[in-house]
Amino acid sequence: MTISIGVIGAGRIGKLHAENLATRIPNVQLMAIADVVESAAQETAARLHIPIATGKYRDILANPKIQAVAICSATDTHSQMIVEAAQAGKHIFCEKPIDFDLKRIDEALNAVEKAGVTLQIGFNRRFDPNFSHVREVVQSGSIGDPHILRITSRDPAPPPVSYIKVSGGIFLDMTIHDFDMARFLIGSDVEEVFAAGAVRVDPAIGEAGDIDTAVTTLRFANGTIGVIDNSRKAAYGYDQRVEVFGSKGSIAAENNTPNRTVISDASGVHHTLPLHFFLERYSESYIIEMKAFVQAVETDEQPPVVGIDGRIPVVIGLAAAKSYRENRPVKISEIS
Amino acid sequence: MTISIGVIGAGRIGKLHAENLATRIPNVQLMAIADVVESAAQETAARLHIPIATGKYRDILANPKIQAVAICSATDTHSQMIVEAAQAGKHIFCEKPIDFDLKRIDEALNAVEKAGVTLQIGFNRRFDPNFSHVREVVQSGSIGDPHILRITSRDPAPPPVSYIKVSGGIFLDMTIHDFDMARFLIGSDVEEVFAAGAVRVDPAIGEAGDIDTAVTTLRFANGTIGVIDNSRKAAYGYDQRVEVFGSKGSIAAENNTPNRTVISDASGVHHTLPLHFFLERYSESYIIEMKAFVQAVETDEQPPVVGIDGRIPVVIGLAAAKSYRENRPVKISEIS
Amino acid sequence: MTISIGVIGAGRIGKLHAENLATRIPNVQLMAIADVVESAAQETAARLHIPIATGKYRDILANPKIQAVAICSATDTHSQMIVEAAQAGKHIFCEKPIDFDLKRIDEALNAVEKAGVTLQIGFNRRFDPNFSHVREVVQSGSIGDPHILRITSRDPAPPPVSYIKVSGGIFLDMTIHDFDMARFLIGSDVEEVFAAGAVRVDPAIGEAGDIDTAVTTLRFANGTIGVIDNSRKAAYGYDQRVEVFGSKGSIAAENNTPNRTVISDASGVHHTLPLHFFLERYSESYIIEMKAFVQAVETDEQPPVVGIDGRIPVVIGLAAAKSYRENRPVKISEIS
Amino acid sequence: MTISIGVIGAGRIGKLHAENLATRIPNVQLMAIADVVESAAQETAARLHIPIATGKYRDILANPKIQAVAICSATDTHSQMIVEAAQAGKHIFCEKPIDFDLKRIDEALNAVEKAGVTLQIGFNRRFDPNFSHVREVVQSGSIGDPHILRITSRDPAPPPVSYIKVSGGIFLDMTIHDFDMARFLIGSDVEEVFAAGAVRVDPAIGEAGDIDTAVTTLRFANGTIGVIDNSRKAAYGYDQRVEVFGSKGSIAAENNTPNRTVISDASGVHHTLPLHFFLERYSESYIIEMKAFVQAVETDEQPPVVGIDGRIPVVIGLAAAKSYRENRPVKISEIS
Repeated sequence: MTISIGVIGAGRIGKLHAENLATRIPNVQLMAIADVVESAAQETAARLHIPIATGKYRDILANPKIQAVAICSATDTHSQMIVEAAQAGKHIFCEKPIDFDLKRIDEALNAVEKAGVTLQIGFNRRFDPNFSHVREVVQSGSIGDPHILRITSRDPAPPPVSYIKVSGGIFLDMTIHDFDMARFLIGSDVEEVFAAGAVRVDPAIGEAGDIDTAVTTLRFANGTIGVIDNSRKAAYGYDQRVEVFGSKGSIAAENNTPNRTVISDASGVHHTLPLHFFLERYSESYIIEMKAFVQAVETDEQPPVVGIDGRIPVVIGLAAAKSYRENRPVKISEIS
Repeated sequence: MTISIGVIGAGRIGKLHAENLATRIPNVQLMAIADVVESAAQETAARLHIPIATGKYRDILANPKIQAVAICSATDTHSQMIVEAAQAGKHIFCEKPIDFDLKRIDEALNAVEKAGVTLQIGFNRRFDPNFSHVREVVQSGSIGDPHILRITSRDPAPPPVSYIKVSGGIFLDMTIHDFDMARFLIGSDVEEVFAAGAVRVDPAIGEAGDIDTAVTTLRFANGTIGVIDNSRKAAYGYDQRVEVFGSKGSIAAENNTPNRTVISDASGVHHTLPLHFFLERYSESYIIEMKAFVQAVETDEQPPVVGIDGRIPVVIGLAAAKSYRENRPVKISEIS
Repeated sequence: MTISIGVIGAGRIGKLHAENLATRIPNVQLMAIADVVESAAQETAARLHIPIATGKYRDILANPKIQAVAICSATDTHSQMIVEAAQAGKHIFCEKPIDFDLKRIDEALNAVEKAGVTLQIGFNRRFDPNFSHVREVVQSGSIGDPHILRITSRDPAPPPVSYIKVSGGIFLDMTIHDFDMARFLIGSDVEEVFAAGAVRVDPAIGEAGDIDTAVTTLRFANGTIGVIDNSRKAAYGYDQRVEVFGSKGSIAAENNTPNRTVISDASGVHHTLPLHFFLERYSESYIIEMKAFVQAVETDEQPPVVGIDGRIPVVIGLAAAKSYRENRPVKISEIS
Repeated sequence: MTISIGVIGAGRIGKLHAENLATRIPNVQLMAIADVVESAAQETAARLHIPIATGKYRDILANPKIQAVAICSATDTHSQMIVEAAQAGKHIFCEKPIDFDLKRIDEALNAVEKAGVTLQIGFNRRFDPNFSHVREVVQSGSIGDPHILRITSRDPAPPPVSYIKVSGGIFLDMTIHDFDMARFLIGSDVEEVFAAGAVRVDPAIGEAGDIDTAVTTLRFANGTIGVIDNSRKAAYGYDQRVEVFGSKGSIAAENNTPNRTVISDASGVHHTLPLHFFLERYSESYIIEMKAFVQAVETDEQPPVVGIDGRIPVVIGLAAAKSYRENRPVKISEIS
């Protein structure tokens, strides 16, 4: 069976998914691509031999031959598109976050439930071979009950301040991935958050009302304590490590590097820097997640990241932002 | 010049210092050892050819030929002995903590100041070749301004519950070392603490009124955010790692191992476990710290860990304990 | 511009190249696949939507729309197919080795030269991101003049003895890759070889007239000394490491692993095994080499691995086999 | 019981052993030190409180209160001193090599045997915690039968050419340690050697009739093949690694470093250089070997490195030198 699919959004992440769908994912036919900038859609369509390019995403939703859509447009369009796509009976892959507004998220999830279509949220890091292996080992019980979770998540450079201003803030823009990762690795829900933050990288980020450095403590329902440290700028590049420490041992995932070479000279023993940023670091995860989506549609089974998995990290992010503003631990139940 | 010294306490740490003074430290003569259990003092004296063994520490304080003492007795005797030793004009090396009571600490520090003797506090980890190198690199500016500090400090096994009950609690017994390390590495003082804790290792520790797992967030005066994670039991042994992340890069110290061998077989690539516990892990640091004390006495210069360095981590520990009890960030100024 | 290409051989390596050409290589159209077992060609054609499947490779050579061929058939057919393909004016990618017989190699290379077509030999390991980086660093001069080269090349398990019997022996079947790697990394030619060998893995290999363990010393024209150690069976999997040691330092490439996770438990600190075998370890290199071939055809420039690069490792292999048999160093000039 | 001991030779290695005997080795009394330069003996005696300092080693041999001697003088005096010490009934620790002349070695060993005294040869690397652990693991059978041995042994800088001229050549001066290590790790004797060598580091070494770069292949009686690579100059410091590869897996020992810190910055991930040279790298091994000697004397049991262990590496070294000169594999039986 072959699933026909349309991609909405021909920006960085839309192009990535389109290319994977065109060349790496079996059992799928990439039929259309849409972008508000029609020429962007046309350019990608030409390069990847996609039959339809359009400036209107509703062309895709209206096309009866298209069974599924991948929503890769700007965040503020996600929830509306989910509602429309669900009403059009399309299966939906949607980039995270669904929205920053819980009410709009709930409307989207309700529309999906009513339509009975498949919805998978794009938390691609779950499909990274490192992190999925950590999860498997934790689930297997071989490190015992988890006691402490550590996530280090640092970007190579901050986005432009213009982006920072509309980003929703560090906890909803950046740490949100780590909140999802935390739930995924520990297999338990977060009940309370305490966030300490600072402007250390660039004062302009502070002037824009955001922070660039944060250490967030999480309490999980199962008693695990987690801590996430974030920075918008690591001089050595993209730093994405996790450790789960449990009663029988620990499992940690180190950074991936473009090669495994080591230079030794009079000044030291030099290893390679981590893969530069998320496109390089997580390239394989994007392929695996899209295969999983296609398979979920094919088999009509639950996808690995469902709608509620898109809602919960937003709730944690809102709690973390509140914790930072009020300088006190905030219970998740205060938000949701 | 040779410094004559007496050791008070012939328990585990007293014997360690006695042995180092007898065989590893130049320019020093170990003249006496005292222990409330006189036979313990005699046994160590015989083994190390120490001329005087006594059941009364005041014999050492009264001996005009002895210039300095190393106080290695039970914690609740430290402050009183510091006062007496200072009054007797002896230079003082004292194991940490000075006391859990700030008033008694202040009395001890006042006595030292009045007598004009040298006082060095036994925060030996500062002298560990890993951590002293991290400090040097941070101080050199080569990783830029510090933004985030991470300390992982996990013991191989909890002490007996009988000890837990009189230990002062995890923050004053265990994390206190990490509070000193935090100040030492960052070169700035802690202003606020938030401690999350749990009983994950052994319910008996909880019944004794303590916790065994903790994640403590620190805010430093210079804007750095720190986080310490502690466990009373790491299945793989003693885990003592730090990372300082700054504007130009990071420096991390990994665990030390008894050897650098790697076995590869059908089940994986296996490295050696870390050195078992603090006596093995920090053996070199004990020698270096005692050399530093002897040198400070010889040259009449400031020792590398002064009296106030013994007081501040107790203050942070009290703040952390309060933060844990009240589940809120606690300012250091609330305590001191 | 798009190059149309046909693949000859639908075995393991033929299928790999076909899949890469169909999905991973830009500017190419995979038009045909041939295999003496026609059903094998048909099966792969169906899966990858290749228009033509045939049991006769000459159908491909005779097709005027096909510009280039990838020869992935049995070794004993390579030289004949090169001759015919060259005479048909096709550009040629050919798996190594060209042949074990130098005369047949020379006939093939002569035919290529006469026809003026492009010939690239499939020494894919040159395109591995580890090894190509080692080469770049050596060429850059940053480790100075090379003094010593070490190659460790060990397979996870020996091939069947039936294969061993027709393999040409370990030096022509297995070490041949390392001879090419040695030339590639050092950028100088081998002048003398000494090979020590033994049967350590399986007596049946010895009964088949071959060895399974070898240590081969190489002298390069530029004065470097190299050593290759081979085993047909490493219990921990595929072991592919190199080190170039020079006057200013060294560069080494460690093994690649499927993930970067580390488990610490009471029994040790456990890293992941290397990627299992050549299909996993060198998957990226196969894509890069084929891109390079397509680009060489497109631009009519010299491909990165030319005909003579296919001949020289065979000469070294013959010298190594002679050295092993006669237990003496053998000059390359004794062979070629 | 306490062993009284005299050290002969107050050069670098004599001072090292004297200091260890004075401060680190239990159950021993360092009574005397001798050096042809009497002031050198006196200086060390004063620093370490050694009762007797003399310019004549025979003073030590004639002293009835001294039970054992540590011969740390120039190599060309070793065999004669062993003979005299044995005749004087002293137990003997002797630095390697005993001599370069097999006849003189045999005279020394005969004198020892006749006198029935203990003789331990100073192959200290056997006592290095890395290498002794490798040996234990190999002996335990957990990596199966050994198939391949690799030793990398590179110095940080060549000795002065004046020393090179009297050193006996690289194989007897430098590789001799590796020959001993090879026997120690594999637990089998070497039967044939092939040595390839070159002058790559410094032409003056070549003019002095020696080489500075060598790759030596060893065939062991048990079928293992070994390879040793040597350089007189590694820009990154002292490089001392081994790997034993066997039927069930491998064990490797990496270099030791002064600390385990890692700096990550925009230019890479930088680890610390290895410990600088043999005094730093092998400091612990010198203590362990001397404890073993004292214990062998105390208990009148076989020391861990006996006289014949001092002879065999010289034989292998002579065979390697011959192999290099004649460019052919040389059987050990051609020498001994």
